[in-house]
Amino acid sequence: SEEARKYFRTVYDFPQWQKHRSSYRFAERLFQLSQSHILQNALPAISWVTLVATLVASYGYSYDQHMLPDVFPSISPNASCTAFISNTSVALSLLLVFRTNSSYGRWDEARKMWGGLLNRSRDIMRQGATCFPDDQVEAKKALARWTVAFSRALRIHFQPEVTIESELQNILTPAELQMLAKSQHRPVRAIHAISQIIQSVPMSSIHQQQMSNNLTFFHDVLGGCERLLRAPIPVSYTRHTARFLFAWLTLLPFALYPTTGWGVVPVCTGIAAVLCGIEEIGVQCEEPFGILPLDVICNRIQADVMATLKDDADTKTILAEAGLISLIPSATSATPVASAEPVLV
Amino acid sequence: SEEARKYFRTVYDFPQWQKHRSSYRFAERLFQLSQSHILQNALPAISWVTLVATLVASYGYSYDQHMLPDVFPSISPNASCTAFISNTSVALSLLLVFRTNSSYGRWDEARKMWGGLLNRSRDIMRQGATCFPDDQVEAKKALARWTVAFSRALRIHFQPEVTIESELQNILTPAELQMLAKSQHRPVRAIHAISQIIQSVPMSSIHQQQMSNNLTFFHDVLGGCERLLRAPIPVSYTRHTARFLFAWLTLLPFALYPTTGWGVVPVCTGIAAVLCGIEEIGVQCEEPFGILPLDVICNRIQADVMATLKDDADTKTILAEAGLISLIPSATSATPVASAEPVLV
Amino acid sequence: SEEARKYFRTVYDFPQWQKHRSSYRFAERLFQLSQSHILQNALPAISWVTLVATLVASYGYSYDQHMLPDVFPSISPNASCTAFISNTSVALSLLLVFRTNSSYGRWDEARKMWGGLLNRSRDIMRQGATCFPDDQVEAKKALARWTVAFSRALRIHFQPEVTIESELQNILTPAELQMLAKSQHRPVRAIHAISQIIQSVPMSSIHQQQMSNNLTFFHDVLGGCERLLRAPIPVSYTRHTARFLFAWLTLLPFALYPTTGWGVVPVCTGIAAVLCGIEEIGVQCEEPFGILPLDVICNRIQADVMATLKDDADTKTILAEAGLISLIPSATSATPVASAEPVLV
Amino acid sequence: SEEARKYFRTVYDFPQWQKHRSSYRFAERLFQLSQSHILQNALPAISWVTLVATLVASYGYSYDQHMLPDVFPSISPNASCTAFISNTSVALSLLLVFRTNSSYGRWDEARKMWGGLLNRSRDIMRQGATCFPDDQVEAKKALARWTVAFSRALRIHFQPEVTIESELQNILTPAELQMLAKSQHRPVRAIHAISQIIQSVPMSSIHQQQMSNNLTFFHDVLGGCERLLRAPIPVSYTRHTARFLFAWLTLLPFALYPTTGWGVVPVCTGIAAVLCGIEEIGVQCEEPFGILPLDVICNRIQADVMATLKDDADTKTILAEAGLISLIPSATSATPVASAEPVLV
Amino acid sequence: SEEARKYFRTVYDFPQWQKHRSSYRFAERLFQLSQSHILQNALPAISWVTLVATLVASYGYSYDQHMLPDVFPSISPNASCTAFISNTSVALSLLLVFRTNSSYGRWDEARKMWGGLLNRSRDIMRQGATCFPDDQVEAKKALARWTVAFSRALRIHFQPEVTIESELQNILTPAELQMLAKSQHRPVRAIHAISQIIQSVPMSSIHQQQMSNNLTFFHDVLGGCERLLRAPIPVSYTRHTARFLFAWLTLLPFALYPTTGWGVVPVCTGIAAVLCGIEEIGVQCEEPFGILPLDVICNRIQADVMATLKDDADTKTILAEAGLISLIPSATSATPVASAEPVLV
Repeated sequence: SEEARKYFRTVYDFPQWQKHRSSYRFAERLFQLSQSHILQNALPAISWVTLVATLVASYGYSYDQHMLPDVFPSISPNASCTAFISNTSVALSLLLVFRTNSSYGRWDEARKMWGGLLNRSRDIMRQGATCFPDDQVEAKKALARWTVAFSRALRIHFQPEVTIESELQNILTPAELQMLAKSQHRPVRAIHAISQIIQSVPMSSIHQQQMSNNLTFFHDVLGGCERLLRAPIPVSYTRHTARFLFAWLTLLPFALYPTTGWGVVPVCTGIAAVLCGIEEIGVQCEEPFGILPLDVICNRIQADVMATLKDDADTKTILAEAGLISLIPSATSATPVASAEPVLV
Repeated sequence: SEEARKYFRTVYDFPQWQKHRSSYRFAERLFQLSQSHILQNALPAISWVTLVATLVASYGYSYDQHMLPDVFPSISPNASCTAFISNTSVALSLLLVFRTNSSYGRWDEARKMWGGLLNRSRDIMRQGATCFPDDQVEAKKALARWTVAFSRALRIHFQPEVTIESELQNILTPAELQMLAKSQHRPVRAIHAISQIIQSVPMSSIHQQQMSNNLTFFHDVLGGCERLLRAPIPVSYTRHTARFLFAWLTLLPFALYPTTGWGVVPVCTGIAAVLCGIEEIGVQCEEPFGILPLDVICNRIQADVMATLKDDADTKTILAEAGLISLIPSATSATPVASAEPVLV
Repeated sequence: SEEARKYFRTVYDFPQWQKHRSSYRFAERLFQLSQSHILQNALPAISWVTLVATLVASYGYSYDQHMLPDVFPSISPNASCTAFISNTSVALSLLLVFRTNSSYGRWDEARKMWGGLLNRSRDIMRQGATCFPDDQVEAKKALARWTVAFSRALRIHFQPEVTIESELQNILTPAELQMLAKSQHRPVRAIHAISQIIQSVPMSSIHQQQMSNNLTFFHDVLGGCERLLRAPIPVSYTRHTARFLFAWLTLLPFALYPTTGWGVVPVCTGIAAVLCGIEEIGVQCEEPFGILPLDVICNRIQADVMATLKDDADTKTILAEAGLISLIPSATSATPVASAEPVLV
Repeated sequence: SEEARKYFRTVYDFPQWQKHRSSYRFAERLFQLSQSHILQNALPAISWVTLVATLVASYGYSYDQHMLPDVFPSISPNASCTAFISNTSVALSLLLVFRTNSSYGRWDEARKMWGGLLNRSRDIMRQGATCFPDDQVEAKKALARWTVAFSRALRIHFQPEVTIESELQNILTPAELQMLAKSQHRPVRAIHAISQIIQSVPMSSIHQQQMSNNLTFFHDVLGGCERLLRAPIPVSYTRHTARFLFAWLTLLPFALYPTTGWGVVPVCTGIAAVLCGIEEIGVQCEEPFGILPLDVICNRIQADVMATLKDDADTKTILAEAGLISLIPSATSATPVASAEPVLV
Repeated sequence: SEEARKYFRTVYDFPQWQKHRSSYRFAERLFQLSQSHILQNALPAISWVTLVATLVASYGYSYDQHMLPDVFPSISPNASCTAFISNTSVALSLLLVFRTNSSYGRWDEARKMWGGLLNRSRDIMRQGATCFPDDQVEAKKALARWTVAFSRALRIHFQPEVTIESELQNILTPAELQMLAKSQHRPVRAIHAISQIIQSVPMSSIHQQQMSNNLTFFHDVLGGCERLLRAPIPVSYTRHTARFLFAWLTLLPFALYPTTGWGVVPVCTGIAAVLCGIEEIGVQCEEPFGILPLDVICNRIQADVMATLKDDADTKTILAEAGLISLIPSATSATPVASAEPVLV
C-alpha cells in the first residue's frame, strides 16, 4: 500500500478537468469502485467489520433458530449498543470530517510551498538575468545551476526514493556535486552557495538584498516542509479519532442486527467503507510529500530557469531594437548560453 | 455542458445587486428552476436516481398487487437500507458542504489573485509614470505595453479559447509579439521583459527594487494560478465523496419506498437535485478559470494602465500650477502620449 | 427595502456596547420583533409560506370535515414530504449557515480594508510630516489634501449616493477638483497625484519608497473593494441555496399538517421567519458597502490627517525643548498650518 | 454585570496551567457552578425561561386535575411546538456556535494585536539602542519614554477607566504630558512624536526606514483595535440569533410539558443555562478590550523597554571584551542610564 | 499526569509515517486502548460517570425487584433527562469539536513559530556567513554562538525543566553566560546582543537591515509564544464547555437506564471515554509548549548553524575554483572554524 501512494501524484490539465467535470462522472464513480486505492488501503479494517457483522448475524440466526444450547444468551444488550451508537454518531462525524480537513490543510500547505518554490525560482533567475552585470556570464550560469540544484536537493530530502547522483549529475559540476553530496544538510548548503554567488557579484547591495529575500523564502519553504514531515497532527488526536471510529464500527453490528437480520453484513460493510475511507484519506494526506508530484515541479523549475537564462540575450536584443537599451556587443552574452548546454540539460 | 461554463462569468454592478437583494427573489428562484445551469449539468445523475426510484416503485407496486410470480422476493431489505441511509446522512452532509467550501476557497483564491493582478498592474504603471525620468518616454510606453501584455498572456494561459494574435496584436510591436509567441513560457517571458525595461532605465536602485517587488508579485500570481490548474483537490477525496453520494442516492429509493409508495419517485428526484446540485457546484468551482471573467479584468487593466500613461503629463501640469514641481517643457512629455495611441488601442 | 440598508450602518462606542451586553437584552429582542429590518425585508417570502400553510390547512380541514366532493384526494403524500424534509434538513442548515458565514467574511474583509485605509492614511501623513523637509510646506498641505481626497473618491466609488462636488469641494482646489472629476477612474488618479507629490519632494529615495509602499497598499484596498463589488459569491451557489430553502419551506406545510392541524400556519411562519432571516442576512452582507459607515471613516481620516498636519510644528517645538532637534525658526513651520485652514476644513 | 468583566482578565503561568489541566477539574467545574460569571450574567434570561416553564406546568397540572373551568383549553398545540423545536434545533446549534466562534475570533485578533504591540515595542527599542549613535543618549531615552507612552495612551483609549495622569505622569516630562493630554487623538500623536525622534537622529536612512516600519505596525494595531471597538458583528446577525434563541427557549416548555410533566421546569432551566451561556460568551468576547489584561501588557512593555535601555551599555562592554567592538569611553554611555532612572520609573 | 505530557513530544521520520499509515493500524488502536495517555488522564472523570451509572443501575434494579421500601420513588424523571440529553447533544458535539479545534490551532501556531525560528536561525547565519567581511572571523563566531543561545534561552523560557547552565555553558563564553543569566528577560537580551554584533560589523546598512529583519521575526516568535502561554482560550468558554459536558454525562445514566438496564454502566463509560477524551485532547493542546519537542529543534538549530559556519570556507573554495570569487588567502578563513570547535560543541 506504500507503493499505491505514487498513484495519488495527480497533475491535471484541461482535458483531465473536462473529464473530471463530465456529467456522466457518477456512472464512472459507481462502477469503478474496485479501482479506489483508498478502499484498497482500508480493506483490512473494512474486512474486520464484515467479519464481526457475519459472526453476529450467524450467532443471532443460530440463536433464533434454537440451534444453540439454552445456556447461550441472546444478543440482548443491543439496546445498550444502540444507545452508544446513536449518542455518539454526530460527534464521530464531526471528528472524522475535521480530522480529514486538518490533513487536507497540511496537503494544501505543502502544495503551496512547492508552488512558491517554483515561483521564486523563476523570480530569482529573472533577478539574476537582469541585475547581474552583462559580463558576469559565469555567475548567471552558476545561479541557474544552483537554483535547480536546490529544488532537486529538496526533493531528495522529502522523497528519498531518488538519489543525489541521478538527480544532479547533469546539473552541477563534479566538484560542486561532491561538495553537496557530503554536506550534513544539503538544501541548507545549496542556499548557502546561491547566497555566496549573489554576494560575489559586483552589483548594488539593494539588488543583492532583493535576491536574498528569495533565499529567505527558500529557507521558509525548506523549514516549513521539514515541519510537516517531523510534526504530525498530535498523535493523541488522530489515535483517539481512529479508536473511536473502530470501536463504533465494531459495536455497530450488535446495534443493527435485531432490525436488519442478515442485512447487517452488507450494511455494516458499506458504512465501514464510507467512514474508513474518510479516515484513510485523512491518513494519506497527513504526510503529503509522498503523494505530491515533486518530480514534475522540479522539471518545471529546471525548464523555466534554463529558458530564462537562454532567452536573456534575445530579450535584450528586442528591447535594444526598440531603442530602450544600448547593448554591449551581443556575441558576448549569447556565447554563455550555448556553452551552458553541455553542463545543464 | 462545457459551453455552459461561460454563463457563470458573472460581473455585478449596483443594478444587479439591487435585483440580487430584491425581496421577491424567492418567486424568481422557485419559478425559474429550469434555467439553472447547475441542475442541467447534474441532469444525468438526477435522471439515474429517478430511474432507480421508478423501477423500485414499479417492482414494489407489482409485488404488492400480486402481479409477480411468487418466486420474486419482496423489497424486504429496506430495514438495512434505512439503517445505512440514516447512519451516514450527517457524515454525507458534512462531507458535501466541506467539499463545496474547499472548492469555493479555490475560486476565491483565483479571484483574489486576478484582482491582485489588476491592483499591481495599476501600481507598477503608477511607479513607472512617477519614477522614470521625464525623458524616458519610450520606456514608459514599453512598460505600459508589456504590463498589458503580461495580463493577456496570462489569460491565454488559463483560457486557451483565445489566441495570442487576437489578444496582443494591437498591444505589442510585431517584433515583440513574435518574440513572445515563440517563447517556451509566455507569461514568464513577459515578466522578464518588464524586468529588463526597469533595469535599463537610469534611476535609483531603490525605485527599481520597488517596481521589482511587483514583478515578484506577478510571479506569485502566475505560479499560484498554475498551482490551482495543475493540482486539483486530492482526487481520492473528491471521488470518495462522489461515490458515497451516488451510492447513498441509489440506495435511497429502497429505504423510502415502504413508507412513501409511488411518492418515492418525486421525493428521490428532489433529494437528488438538492444534493447533486451541491456536488455540481463544488465540481464547477474547483477549476475556477473557466468561470471567471478574465477578459473583463484584462480590459480593465488595459484601460487603467493606458489612462495612467495618458494622464501623467496632465497630473504634472496641475501640480506644477500648485507650485509643487517645476516642469520640464511640457510639450516633451505630452508628445509621447499622443504617439502612443496608434500602437496601443 | 434598499433604503433600509442605511439603518445597518452601525458605529458603536462604549455606551452602545453596554446596552448590547445588557443582561436584559433578551426582553428587548423578544418584544421588538417588529423593528427587525431583516424580517421586514424577508416579509414577502415569509408571507408566501404563510399563504401556502393556510391553503394546506384549509384544504385539509375541508377534506376532514367531508366538505369537499369525493373526487378530491386527501393530502396523503405527506409521507413523501416528510421524507424529503427530514432527509435534507441537516444539509439545508449547514448550507444556510455556511452561506451566511461566507457573506460575513466578505463584510469583514471590506471593513478591514476600510480600517486599513484609515490606518495607512494616518501613516502616510505621519511620514510626510516627518520626512518632507521643513520648507516643503506646500507639499505637506498637498499631501494632506490628496490623502483625504483619495478616501472620499473611494467612498463615491462605492456609495454612489454622494457626488464629487459635495464631498470634495472644500478639500481640493478648483483646478484639482476639475482634474479629478473628469478622470476616467478617480481613485486611481488620486493615488497617481499623491505619488507625483512624493516624487517631487527632494528627499532620500528610501523615504520615498516607504511612502510609496502605502500607495501600493491603497491600490490593494481599491482593487480589493472593487473585487467585492464586481464578483459576488458564485451565483449558482447562492441561488441553489435559495431555491433549496424556498422549496423546502413550500413543502414544509404538507409534511407538518397531519400532526399539527391548524397549528401548521404559525409553525411554518415561525420556521420561515428563522430560516429566511438567516438567508436575508447573508444577502445583505454579501455587498457590504451599502451597510458600512463609509462617511464616518472618511470624516475620521480627514480629522486625523489634518490634526497631524496642524500638530507637526507643535510636536517639533516640544522635542526641541527637550534638546532633541534644533528647530529652523519656528515661524516658518507654523505659518503653513494657519494658512492651510481656509482650504481644508 | 459590567463590573464582572474584570474577572475575565486572565493571565496564566505554569502553576495555573497545571491546575487548568488537573485530572480532577471535572469535580471543580460541577460543584462551583454558582461561581460562573457567565451564568450570573445570563440569569435574567434563564429566569424568564424558568418562569415560563413553571407557568406552563402549573396550567397543565391544573387542567389535568380538572381544577380549571371547562372553557380553558388544554395545552394542546404542543404538536406544533414540537414541530417548531425539532425542525430548527440543528440550525440554532450551528448559529450559536458559529456566532460564539466569530466573537472568539475577535477576541483572538485583539489579543494578537496587543501581543504584537509588545513585540514591536521591544523591537523598536532594540533598534534604537543599537542604531542610534552612542552619543545620542537623550534620543534613546526619549524613544523609550514615548514607546511606553504610546502603549499606555492606547490602553486609555480602550479602557477609559484609567486617566492619562495616573498612567503617564511618571513616564513623560510635564511638557510632553501636557502636549499629549490636549491632543485630539493621543495615540496618533504619540506615534508622531516617535517618528520625529527617529527622523531627528543623524543615522542611515535605511535604519530610519526600518524603525519607521514598526511605527506603521503601531498604526495598524491602533486602527485595528479601533475597528473592533467601532464595528460590532453586524447587529442584524447577532440580534437575529438572539431572537431565534429566546423564541426557541420560550416555546420549549410547551413542547416538552406533555412528556415531562413538572420535570419541564428543571429541564428547561438546564437547557436555557447551557444555550444562554453559549450566547453570553459570544456577547462578552465580542468587545474584547474590557476582558483583556491591558495593564499587564503595558507593564511588561515598560519593564522590557527600560531594561533594554539600561542594559545597552552592559551588552556593549561584554562584546567589547570579546574584541568585537571598540567602545567609546564607557563612562559616557553608562551615565545616561543612571540619570534616566528619575524620570522613568 | 503532568509527567505524561513528555510522551506527547512526537518527532516523526519516514519509518514512523509508514507505521502510522499501516493498513493494520485499526488492530493496534483497538487492542492498545490501555496505553492511551489521553484516557489515563481522563480516568477520574470517566470513573465518576461509571460510578453514577452503577448507582443508578443498582437503585433501579433494587426498585424493580421491590427490594426497597415503598417510600422510595422510581427513577421516573427519565423523560425529563431524555429531553435534556436529546435537545443538547448536537450543541455539545459542536462545542466540543470546535473547542478541540481551537486548541489544535494554538498547538499548530506554536509549532509553526518554532519551525520559523529554525528557518530564520539558518537564514541569519547564512546572511552572516556571506555578508560579513571575510576578516570578521570573530563576529561570525559570535553570531553563531548567540543565535544558538537565543533558541536555547527561549526553550528555557517555555520549558522550565532545564536550566541555563545545562543548556548554554558549552555555547557561550563564561562572561557572556553570566551576563545572560542575570538578565531580567533573557531572550530579549540575546536578541539585543545579536543586534549589537550586526551593528558593530563594518558592512552595508542594507545588509544590516536585512539581518535585522530576522531579529524582528525573532521578537515576533518570542512574543507570540509568550502570548500563547499567558493567554488561554477565554476560561469562561472552556469552563462552560466542560461544565456542560460533565453535567450532560452525569445525567446520561438517568436517561438511558430504562431502556438499557445494567447495560447503562458500560455504555455510559464508553460514551464518557469518547467525549472526555476529546475534551482532554483540547486541554492538553491548549498549552502547547509542554508537548512540543523543543530540545530536538534546538539541537537542529545548533547543528545547522554550526555547519554553515564551518562550511563557509569550503563553499567559497568551490566557487573560487569555478572562477566566481577571488579568495583572500584561504588559510585565514579556514582557521576560525577550527578554533571555533572548543567553544561551541
